[in-house]
Amino acid sequence: MLTVFGTIALDTTRTPFRTQSHVLGGAATFAALSSSFFTRTGIIGVIGSDFPPRYREILDNRIDTKGIVKDTTGRCFHFDSSFDYDLSHRTANRTELNVIADFKPIVPLEYGDSEYLYLANNDPIQNMEILEYFPNTKLTICDTIEYWILHNPNAVSKMISQVNGVVINQEEARLLCREYNLVKCAKYIMSLGPEFVVIKKGENGALFFLEDMIFPAPAFPLDVVVDPTGAGDSFAGGFFGYLAQQNKKTLGVMKEAVIYGNVMGSFAIQDFGVSALLTLSRMDIQDRYERYRDMVSFG
Amino acid sequence: MLTVFGTIALDTTRTPFRTQSHVLGGAATFAALSSSFFTRTGIIGVIGSDFPPRYREILDNRIDTKGIVKDTTGRCFHFDSSFDYDLSHRTANRTELNVIADFKPIVPLEYGDSEYLYLANNDPIQNMEILEYFPNTKLTICDTIEYWILHNPNAVSKMISQVNGVVINQEEARLLCREYNLVKCAKYIMSLGPEFVVIKKGENGALFFLEDMIFPAPAFPLDVVVDPTGAGDSFAGGFFGYLAQQNKKTLGVMKEAVIYGNVMGSFAIQDFGVSALLTLSRMDIQDRYERYRDMVSFG
Repeated sequence: MLTVFGTIALDTTRTPFRTQSHVLGGAATFAALSSSFFTRTGIIGVIGSDFPPRYREILDNRIDTKGIVKDTTGRCFHFDSSFDYDLSHRTANRTELNVIADFKPIVPLEYGDSEYLYLANNDPIQNMEILEYFPNTKLTICDTIEYWILHNPNAVSKMISQVNGVVINQEEARLLCREYNLVKCAKYIMSLGPEFVVIKKGENGALFFLEDMIFPAPAFPLDVVVDPTGAGDSFAGGFFGYLAQQNKKTLGVMKEAVIYGNVMGSFAIQDFGVSALLTLSRMDIQDRYERYRDMVSFG
Repeated sequence: MLTVFGTIALDTTRTPFRTQSHVLGGAATFAALSSSFFTRTGIIGVIGSDFPPRYREILDNRIDTKGIVKDTTGRCFHFDSSFDYDLSHRTANRTELNVIADFKPIVPLEYGDSEYLYLANNDPIQNMEILEYFPNTKLTICDTIEYWILHNPNAVSKMISQVNGVVINQEEARLLCREYNLVKCAKYIMSLGPEFVVIKKGENGALFFLEDMIFPAPAFPLDVVVDPTGAGDSFAGGFFGYLAQQNKKTLGVMKEAVIYGNVMGSFAIQDFGVSALLTLSRMDIQDRYERYRDMVSFG
């Protein structure tokens, strides 16, 4: 089982073409929905009194939601952001922490034997507390975001030293490492402890680093992008979900996992919010994986 | 034979680490030196009275320079630019056209049966005049730059309609097509006439388009970049040089050509100006090609 800890949000996303208000979002939501295509997935997070029953139903149908706490004293975490015309630059308009501000996560007894743990965009201190509930994981991966790198860099570094792998955006990797070159960034992050690092580059794909080995993987090219929200989290869910499904950490499997991550990220951005992930079948994923493989093969 | 038409320059390049003044540069120089590892290459261009004999010797030793005109009434084309600390953003400080302002290119008789023609960053009208000297090429490829897209977009489109392929930077493709999405940009460019398009993305590699087929190819990852000048032109030289060497336009050969382009671009940026290209052997290129192939293979 793969346990995902992170935000479950209501997102307001504004693109030049359309605005959607208070739709299902959050790093844990995207990552868990994405990984659920590959492996049994549980989620740990908090929702508020305004979380629509239909969203709860979506989650209940696809993932183990015993780890979701409903805090009826407050409203959901809400993130309001706008994309430019090119859909590549996001501006945060408003972030309302609401119920996540004082959330004390509870790890359901059934999650305790989870072999795989994904710590998404939470406070690194909270992530490290969660880690203590999972002493026997085969693999733990974390992400982090600009906010924590700026506000508590020491805790971010300490958290990174306690995980097996890091999945991180290029902008955040550069900020964390105070270095532009991504190969150097990855070396620095691995010097803190992790065996591997994935640097996500949005429309330019991802770079996977394992010891001295580098695997650069371009994104699946798309001519229509609707909403880039959740692409990186869907990548993480596909990457980690496939690793959990295969239950192996060979270089070959990890490379395949990066491609499944790319594939899941490419689906996520083809519709607003989580919509594209909800209409997807395992066959669609396999088809796109194989199209990708044919596309990039040569020589 | 591959004929390259474009600028031969003296570049002043300033990075936060080092400044080099009036060193050998120019789009045609980089492209021709790069392609010379794969196929016999001739160059058409103009130099001024201040072109150092040692640079002339470098060119004479590696490429056919019968097409170089020495204009003793003026100085060489000079481009002065600075890179940011991250070596990814270039600012033009000064562009002195000098002898290229009134250059009337001369096509040596020996170049007339050239089967391959590369039209680099010149005035599109001049490029089209050159095209008329080569009625029997198997393949003609052009590039273009911001200056011509802004100053004579109609001529750029007309030039594009007369070639088989276009190699262009992502920024310039977006400017030319008034479109952010690169898949749409490539479709637009192909709608003007060319069979294929390569969009160069710097540290993020390249996208190759042939009809409905897309080949995304990441850059060869490097942890030390010295001077990005000439990377795109070296890419074009490697790509086109390999196509000329193979003398085939199958999809498989074109994909391999993109990788050789990436490999040549990666070498170019490891030293100032053309220096890295001058110390390179055919074996170095083959080794890096094979390392790249192993690196990106999976599944």
